[in-house]
Amino acid sequence: MDFISKLAKASQKNRSLLCVGLDPEPALMPEKTGVFEFNKAIIDATADLVCAYKPNIAFYEAMGNEGLEALKKTRDYIPKDIPVIIDAKRGDIGNTVKAYARSLFDYYKFDAMTASPYLGYDSLEPFIEYRDRGVFILCRTSNKGAADFQSLYVGKEGDVKKMLFEVVAEKVDGWNKHGNLGLVVGATYPEELKLIRERYPQMPLLIPGVGAQGGGIEQTVKYGVDREKTKTIINSSRQILYASRGRDFAEAAGKAARELRDSINKYL
Amino acid sequence: MDFISKLAKASQKNRSLLCVGLDPEPALMPEKTGVFEFNKAIIDATADLVCAYKPNIAFYEAMGNEGLEALKKTRDYIPKDIPVIIDAKRGDIGNTVKAYARSLFDYYKFDAMTASPYLGYDSLEPFIEYRDRGVFILCRTSNKGAADFQSLYVGKEGDVKKMLFEVVAEKVDGWNKHGNLGLVVGATYPEELKLIRERYPQMPLLIPGVGAQGGGIEQTVKYGVDREKTKTIINSSRQILYASRGRDFAEAAGKAARELRDSINKYL
Repeated sequence: MDFISKLAKASQKNRSLLCVGLDPEPALMPEKTGVFEFNKAIIDATADLVCAYKPNIAFYEAMGNEGLEALKKTRDYIPKDIPVIIDAKRGDIGNTVKAYARSLFDYYKFDAMTASPYLGYDSLEPFIEYRDRGVFILCRTSNKGAADFQSLYVGKEGDVKKMLFEVVAEKVDGWNKHGNLGLVVGATYPEELKLIRERYPQMPLLIPGVGAQGGGIEQTVKYGVDREKTKTIINSSRQILYASRGRDFAEAAGKAARELRDSINKYL
Repeated sequence: MDFISKLAKASQKNRSLLCVGLDPEPALMPEKTGVFEFNKAIIDATADLVCAYKPNIAFYEAMGNEGLEALKKTRDYIPKDIPVIIDAKRGDIGNTVKAYARSLFDYYKFDAMTASPYLGYDSLEPFIEYRDRGVFILCRTSNKGAADFQSLYVGKEGDVKKMLFEVVAEKVDGWNKHGNLGLVVGATYPEELKLIRERYPQMPLLIPGVGAQGGGIEQTVKYGVDREKTKTIINSSRQILYASRGRDFAEAAGKAARELRDSINKYL
């Protein structure tokens, strides 16, 4: 099943737009808990509450090959009906991007990935050509520095009316011939989120930044959710994974995930 | 020794601005040759001809953990006086970038890395704070799609005079408080290379795109090299690694590297 259909089914089954970010940070995890063991407990506690999971590969790379083995085991452990988005923000020239695709799509078999737009279309094409997978292009990210470039006004000489993130969204919409592209827009910038959702009502949006990063739930739902409620992914990582730092971490994560899912649903 | 000093020493010792890109592609390598074995032979044949090596991590990730073990062995095998730049084009929000830094700078101990500017300053700061390492920010990349965003005119509404890649260069120059930043500018765009070098005569430039990608050597040298000839890195990968596809690949790589180094030096 292709990524978009799988996402819609999981959203509907679990009545959820919540994505749990599987970002293991040893300093925040209970002592003597292995990464896979930690993820497994989190997945067991949240699998009926989410529309997707999103591991950020950086946290696994930081632990060397042992970390990447835990990533593979985690991916394989996640129930087959829940899509897994690898947050990797890759982007490179063509023959190199093919190598990244072999790793993320062929070896790990992720359902979707995040990618950076800076190198332009040909740097994304090898990902896009995996028609049954999703590719979320960074548009307006959730961090403070996002404005450094993403909010600059751009265009052709003498005709500049849009900000860079708007042009990225416009181009991605144009490149979306297989219907497998989406955008990353942070919950921390509600005006920008509103603008993107209004312009692209059908575009899958991956929305990080609620919770620890400060994005509010009511505004995120009001501005970000699509009409069918099947193409919006609201991600939370730290608020759920580290709801408790003790041995009851999984139970606490389940509770935090349930509360966040229900809180999102309340505003729908 | 910090990256900039190490680069200058290696350039001077080997009278070379050539960087060999260690991008192993099984389909192009001689049969039954392991990745580390291949790299080791290439390094043995070229270590007195280069100012740096630049593995692109994608090609190793594509081979799973075995590939990443070969990357670690390759990094450890490279003579200590030659800097190694990992081409990873990373960029993410702050706590995630710290995880990438732990992987690339602490675990692998690379001397320098490439990073993507799209997320802005705070997405790069954790890399920049490793003062003895180099960070090359993507500016004008060597691929065809580079123009999609990098050549858009940007600025404030109604006051637009520069293209995005120029603004990236300007910001990176402003962020360079520790003197460890550089820019990636492709040899395939000589006018842009000329403009960047003229504006930032002291900025380390990593210049990919000569050879297989079509960048000419004479123009690259004329427009890209700094006055001291110690802050310019001209990368070639495929033209050297795959000069021969037979058992004599290392000898052929050594010959190709020598010719390219000498050809660069001829135009200095």
